[in-house]
Formats: sequence, structure tokens, C-alpha cells
Amino acid sequence: MRTPAIILNFKTYAQVDGDGALALARICEEVQRETGASIIICPPMVELSRIAHEVNTPVFAQNVDLWESSARTGHTTLSSVKAAGASGILINHSENRRRMADIEALITACRKEGLTSIVCTNNISASRAAAAMGPDLVAMEPPELIGGDISVTTVNPGIVRDTVKAVEAITSDVRVLTGAGVKNAEDIRVALELGTVGVLLASGVVKAEDPRGVLRKMTEGLVR
Amino acid sequence: MRTPAIILNFKTYAQVDGDGALALARICEEVQRETGASIIICPPMVELSRIAHEVNTPVFAQNVDLWESSARTGHTTLSSVKAAGASGILINHSENRRRMADIEALITACRKEGLTSIVCTNNISASRAAAAMGPDLVAMEPPELIGGDISVTTVNPGIVRDTVKAVEAITSDVRVLTGAGVKNAEDIRVALELGTVGVLLASGVVKAEDPRGVLRKMTEGLVR
Amino acid sequence: MRTPAIILNFKTYAQVDGDGALALARICEEVQRETGASIIICPPMVELSRIAHEVNTPVFAQNVDLWESSARTGHTTLSSVKAAGASGILINHSENRRRMADIEALITACRKEGLTSIVCTNNISASRAAAAMGPDLVAMEPPELIGGDISVTTVNPGIVRDTVKAVEAITSDVRVLTGAGVKNAEDIRVALELGTVGVLLASGVVKAEDPRGVLRKMTEGLVR
Amino acid sequence: MRTPAIILNFKTYAQVDGDGALALARICEEVQRETGASIIICPPMVELSRIAHEVNTPVFAQNVDLWESSARTGHTTLSSVKAAGASGILINHSENRRRMADIEALITACRKEGLTSIVCTNNISASRAAAAMGPDLVAMEPPELIGGDISVTTVNPGIVRDTVKAVEAITSDVRVLTGAGVKNAEDIRVALELGTVGVLLASGVVKAEDPRGVLRKMTEGLVR
Repeated sequence: MRTPAIILNFKTYAQVDGDGALALARICEEVQRETGASIIICPPMVELSRIAHEVNTPVFAQNVDLWESSARTGHTTLSSVKAAGASGILINHSENRRRMADIEALITACRKEGLTSIVCTNNISASRAAAAMGPDLVAMEPPELIGGDISVTTVNPGIVRDTVKAVEAITSDVRVLTGAGVKNAEDIRVALELGTVGVLLASGVVKAEDPRGVLRKMTEGLVR
Repeated sequence: MRTPAIILNFKTYAQVDGDGALALARICEEVQRETGASIIICPPMVELSRIAHEVNTPVFAQNVDLWESSARTGHTTLSSVKAAGASGILINHSENRRRMADIEALITACRKEGLTSIVCTNNISASRAAAAMGPDLVAMEPPELIGGDISVTTVNPGIVRDTVKAVEAITSDVRVLTGAGVKNAEDIRVALELGTVGVLLASGVVKAEDPRGVLRKMTEGLVR
Repeated sequence: MRTPAIILNFKTYAQVDGDGALALARICEEVQRETGASIIICPPMVELSRIAHEVNTPVFAQNVDLWESSARTGHTTLSSVKAAGASGILINHSENRRRMADIEALITACRKEGLTSIVCTNNISASRAAAAMGPDLVAMEPPELIGGDISVTTVNPGIVRDTVKAVEAITSDVRVLTGAGVKNAEDIRVALELGTVGVLLASGVVKAEDPRGVLRKMTEGLVR
Repeated sequence: MRTPAIILNFKTYAQVDGDGALALARICEEVQRETGASIIICPPMVELSRIAHEVNTPVFAQNVDLWESSARTGHTTLSSVKAAGASGILINHSENRRRMADIEALITACRKEGLTSIVCTNNISASRAAAAMGPDLVAMEPPELIGGDISVTTVNPGIVRDTVKAVEAITSDVRVLTGAGVKNAEDIRVALELGTVGVLLASGVVKAEDPRGVLRKMTEGLVR
């Protein structure tokens, strides 16, 4: 994963049902091409393969249920998202908290399969735990700020800096992302300044009236 | 949903990772065109939109988590599968048992959205309960026979007949499907004879060495 | 279970931690003795055996996880609650929704073990489904009224009457309880008038300043 | 928690339904009194308060669902187990895996409430993660040996030693327990030699024909 990066979680907003997901993915692809920014997209689960086939932008899965293929119905396996064209996965998003044992198994499976693993966490202690299992990245998101209008970099820059330090104290192999409330280029600029290598965001772009304009502006924050 | 029908659950077998799913979907489309049989396919979640866009065969989702769009990560909404091109959903498969309250909400949402709902059950009592909530179809599958080599129509035809009667006693609006161990045309022929309107199957086709040959042969059982 | 009855769910309110649960259970026992009313209590899980041994009032479990004994940790088995002295169980409370397959297995296990089963539901369709599985009782509670200050008997008496009719249309063996917002004798009187055989309540007594007084008054509504 | 210690998980075996739990708890109390050994018992959830009131031995809860009191049904709160007399909790047992965010919240709540927290794990990586969240103890149990006849100290003493080292590398504040297959005094002696401060066991005592004899013998292994 090329950093600094913007990871855009499409979530399951009505805006990205069906062709809406493809349209937004194309916007991301264009902004990436025009600006050179590293933009990673996480489309709705059922659109994953279609988008990975139609758009030339790194695609991550919003979730993976199982690390092994098997007779299961309605769940998503690591091999199915890899075969669909994903190059990484979000693990343990605040809206999809996972068992610690499953997080560990998924991280291990990602490493084996060459997929990038991002583990979301809600505080410094959980970030330490996530880092101790060796994912590629930890994305710390204070739950009370997720989906909100004010960025964690404004409300509590100290917690971002402390998370970076806490993770570094566990291992030098895991990088940190900033999440929760990130809305503009300045939020991203501060996020990088605080020692994180990118941002995880959703509503700020997905629900924007002009996603292309918003995203384009945001990429200016990626220039250190 | 045109009946009698074969509903083919792709599950998450390694055979249907990535392009494997599309290849099998194309086989189903061809057999359907050649034989006129009603074949419905349930691809892996991440392949759903791609397959619905590329293949001209009714597609059902293996699962739906949520009946309303919202800020959720890694879950699948009813509107996202509908927008992706699905025309129905499997609910409560034995490998994805759901809460009764969620089954009820999903059935209601399917009715409103014009999607076909199939509720899987494990015995007569649960089939009665499912029928009482008014889905389009109930698929009764004795758990001990799922994924096995002998069809429920051979092992216990009485339970299929009794399920049909039990569902009819609750309502005349819900039809019944036969599932578990269905492997060939004769199994399907008996399933229809016992009063069900089709079969739900998976491994018999998905893991077959010659899925096209197996499926083609099976369609002969659909002729009453 | 002797009807008409008041089923008092202690939930996990701070008021019934430790000795608080025993104190409230003793109040219920006394009111029962003084008034002759049928009062059933559902203490916090960890207090179940202690209360069943110390108080002479029917005790129901708030939940049961497993219908068979086995090597499991932190779950509750049907045989453990029966051996502890419980004579029935609440199944599928709105705060503990269960899978339909598990509800069915629990009802069947209760019947076999001679325990009374109460299945909670949220609307008429789910009540029909619950009834179709043959529990002893169905307790219909509109979710938006649970824990509130206005009784379902006031807000929507029609839904209570319709639930009774809907359950009767499925089977004559299952009785109905009224739940959600029940607060006083008049609520109970109306609940019985509408064809239900008792009420399921919690906060109205557990969080009351004078639980004894409130409960005593309520029993007046049980006299038809 | 006084160490070295034997933590006896009663699980939900039929042997400890009802009075069986109290009988075994009394045996543990007697062996503790006779030998001076530190023995901690984890009774079935519904027997917790009764046993804590009747037996003079430290009692831990097999599980806690919630760290705050609230309107919940059938779940177990931290304050309810504390008020019932428990002095610690098992978290994340292999038969009750928990979300990482919940493990973190429970550890924090235990620290605040003065309860001892033991987090179970399945391998070295998960043990590091658990340690990073600062519980009192980590109990590493290779899943394939749980409930079996051969102790981890025999099959794979190296993994026990490596777990101790891995946890020490994260923090010096967290101690390690040995679990899985522990059956006799020699297993315990080796467990202590490998740097752990006690053992977590279940079937070896609970399902023994002579639990008192087995437990008594085991305590000999606690003498360093």
C-alpha cells in the first residue's frame, strides 16, 4: 500500500447501492490519476468484484468473515475477496467488531496471502493489542467521533500522537492511520504531521453533494 | 420465481472464487437456455453484482444482513443486493442461521421491495414458524443430510410430504422447496411428486467434475 | 404456570445486583402470599440458584443458551437452570433476540424437561411464528414501548387483541401475555380483558421507589 | 490472586448442574484448607451467587457480558458478579471468544472494580495482544489440546516458555497461566518450572470419578 494514503470506506450508504458504487469508484480512479494521490476504496461487499474488474484503483474489502474456503453460505472468505481482485481488508471496523482470535487469524492469513491488513481500534489500549498481532496498519478511531463533523485531529490530536507512540513501543513494523470525522485537506495534513500515514474516511466523501470536488481538495492534504 | 425450479447455492467453495463463480454462472445460463429449465443461482457475496451484470439468469443473494441502508461496514443491505441485480434472497440457511425477529423483518422488506424470499428451516416445527411469517418459499433441509451423498427424498420422503402438509395448514400462500443431499434428476422428480416446487442444492453441482453435465441431467427431473 | 400471572423480569438493573435481587424476590414472595396473586420472578442469571433456594416463588430464567450439557464456558444450559430450581424460561426477549432454530430447539427441550416456555415477540407476524412452534406462552411486546411509561394496553389495545386472535388462528394451545410499558393495576385489568393471561414487566417494579407498594397495587388488576 | 494457583473451570458439565456445583465447590474448599493450596473456582453462571455465599473459596465468573448495568435481559454484568461475591473473571475462553473491543473494556472495568482479569488465548500472537491490554493474567491454551488427555506441558513445553517470554516482552505486569490438558501434579510442576504462575483446568477434575483425590494430588505440584 503506497503511503500517504486516503482509504475511502463506502460503507452501505444508499448513495453506493448498485451503480452508485461504480460511479464513486470511477471518481476515485480519476482523482487518483489526476493528482497522483494514493486512494484505496472499500466498496459494498456485493459490488467488490465488479468494481475491482472495472476500475483501476486498489480495492480493499470492508470485511472478511472466514480465512478458509468451506461449505458456508452468505459469508465471505479471504480467498474469494483476493480472487475478486481485492488487495487488502479492513478488519474490526467499529461497525463490525470482531473476536480477538478471529482478528489474529485474519492478520495471519493476510500475511500468507499477500493482502494488506488494516485493523481498526477504538483507543490506545486496543491499538497496542492490534499492533501486537502484527497487521500492516492500525486505524485508531474514537467511536464518538465516527460519522461526525469534527475530525479527531482537531478534537484530540494528542490521542493520535499517543497512539503512534504506543504502537511504536510494541513494534516498528506497524503503521498507523487516522480515522473519525476526517473531512478536509487540513485534517489530513495534521494527521500526517502527527505521525500517521494516512486517513480512513467515509461519510465526508460518500455523502457529499460533490464527492469529486471534496476528494480532490482532500488530496492536497496528502502532500507533506 | 418460475417453478418448478432448481436453486443453486454456490456457497463459498474454492471452486467459485473469482472467475470460477462467473464460469459456473455461465454454465447455468446455458443449461437454462438449452433446456428451458428454471435455474436460480446464488453466487458468493462479493461476486453478486458482477454476475448479475454479466449473466442472464435470476440471481439470489446467499444472505442479507440489513433491511435498511445505513452507516455500516462489511454488512450487506437489501437495497444493495436489489440494486446489484438480485431478484431474491436466501434467509436463514443452516450455515447462516438468523434471529427470528430478523427473519420476519427481512421477509417483510422483501415483500415491500418485490424480492423473492426463501426461508430455510431444519424441521417441521421451524417450517411452520417460517410459513407463519409469510415468505414466498420455505426450504426444509434436515441438517444431517446437508452436503451429503443421499437425498432427503430417499432417506425420508415422509418428512418432505409432512412439511408440505404442515405449511399448507398454516397458509396456502407459501410454497415448499426440498433440500439436502439432492444429487440427480430422480431426486428432483421425487421432490416434485412429494408436493414441493423445486430443490435447493449446492455441492452436487458446484463440486462436480462436470457441473454442466450434472446440471443438464438434473433438469430432466424438473419435467413433471 | 398459574394464570392470570405477573411475570417480573429483574433484568440487569443495578437495583438487583447481589442482595438487591434477593430483597426484591422476598417482596414478591410476600405479596404473593398476602394477595394470592401468581407472581413469577426472573432474577439476574448469577442470582438464579441462590434465589430459587431461598424464596418460595416460581423462578424463571431470563435466558438459556444451550439445550444440552457440554464442555462450554460461561453459557447457561437448560439442565443447569432446571437443577438450580427454575420452572420456566424467557426465550427471545427483545434484549436477547435468538435464532429461530434455537428458539425451536429450546421450546422442544422445555417441553421434554417439563419447563414452561415463554417466547417474546415484537409484532403479530413474529407472534404467529412463535405460536407455530408450540411454546406455552407468547409475550408480545412492541419494542418502541419497552421500558417506557405508557402501556401497550393504552397506546394500542388493538394490537394486543389482534395478537390473541392471530395466535388462536395458529393453535389453541398457546396463550398470550401482554408486555411493554405495563405500570399499574388498570393496565393489567385491560390486558386480561383483551384476552391475554398476564403481563410481563420490569422497570415499573424493579426501578420503583417502593416496589412492594407498586406490586401490591398491581395485583388488584389480576382479579378479573 | 495468590499464586501459584489452580483455577478450576466447572464449565457446564452435567456433573455440576445444581447441587453438583456446590458439592464440588465444597471439595475445593476442603482441599484448599487441608493443603494451603490456592484454588480458584469458576462455577456455572446460575450457581455463582449461591456458591460464593456458601463456600469460602475465591470464586471467579466464567464470563461477563457487560461492563455496565443496564436494561438487558439474560446477560451478566460485571457489577452483578462482583455483588454476587466473585473476585475475578475469565475472559475470552476458547468456548466463549470475545470481541477485542469487549476484552479491552472488560479488562479496564475489572481494574476499576478491583476484580482479577484472566484473558484466555490460543497462541503466542494473541497472547501478546492480550498482554498489551494489561489484564492481570493471560492463560494460553492451544485449542487442539483443550479437554484432551495430554497436557500442553508434555506435548509442547516450548510454546509455554515462548508465551511467557512474549508476554514479558510486552509488559512485566502480566503473568501467565498454563492451560489445556493439565491432568496431574507433574503437569503443574512443569507448568511452574516453565515460568507460569498456575494452571487453568476443567475436565480433569470435574469429570473425575474421585474429584477430591485428583485435586488433592494435583496440589502437590504447586509446591515449587
